[in-house]
Amino acid sequence: MSDAADVEEATAGFYRAFEALDIARMDRVWAHGAHVRCVHPGWPLLCGWDAVRGSWQQIFDNTTEMRFTLSDITVNVAGDLAWVTCTENILSEVGERVSVTAILATNVFERTEAGWLLVHHHASHVM
Amino acid sequence: MSDAADVEEATAGFYRAFEALDIARMDRVWAHGAHVRCVHPGWPLLCGWDAVRGSWQQIFDNTTEMRFTLSDITVNVAGDLAWVTCTENILSEVGERVSVTAILATNVFERTEAGWLLVHHHASHVM
Repeated sequence: MSDAADVEEATAGFYRAFEALDIARMDRVWAHGAHVRCVHPGWPLLCGWDAVRGSWQQIFDNTTEMRFTLSDITVNVAGDLAWVTCTENILSEVGERVSVTAILATNVFERTEAGWLLVHHHASHVM
Repeated sequence: MSDAADVEEATAGFYRAFEALDIARMDRVWAHGAHVRCVHPGWPLLCGWDAVRGSWQQIFDNTTEMRFTLSDITVNVAGDLAWVTCTENILSEVGERVSVTAILATNVFERTEAGWLLVHHHASHVM
């Protein structure tokens, strides 16, 4: 598989872990260093794996269902670093009302012995 | 100078071009390929240099003054790619009211023969 295909698969793995609301899967998707960064929509910048992991735990604890359809995915690989942009089309159901929210995301991956691991996620609303 | 210092200098150059509202300087800061991406706060994803350049022209045409103070800058370099996160503290003056807005930014740079060039800028509001 090409590097780009590997990174696209790592991207899909991240969103599957998010949909599963499964912190153990999120642990396997991310690098665990102090250099890890994360920006959830509207949140402040989170620095380091402990803070990032805590944010996922908090989101998972407060979410009952999450379904993504990704569009506009582009993958750029240079050596051992890759950056991905995509639109997260998020389907949520509250009562009988189904809504779709579009979120723009930048995801940065590092190539490691364990494969491509996420080191940065920046997600924001389109107004 | 180390790679990280070079990338930090390229980051400063980008924000100086932004403050100068000078499209010719922006031209020198960015790569000009089809892979270039940009997300201004609340805007949709812009793809390719023509669209990105057009957005800067539009912003510069509609802005009279822009002053940045950057904080929380972290630079990560791997080979010929680098990613930077920072907080843009933006001072704006409307009438007699001075306000500071915090914007979170992800900037991705590519090493080229012309130095480190910006290939992706993702900026979003903190709620």
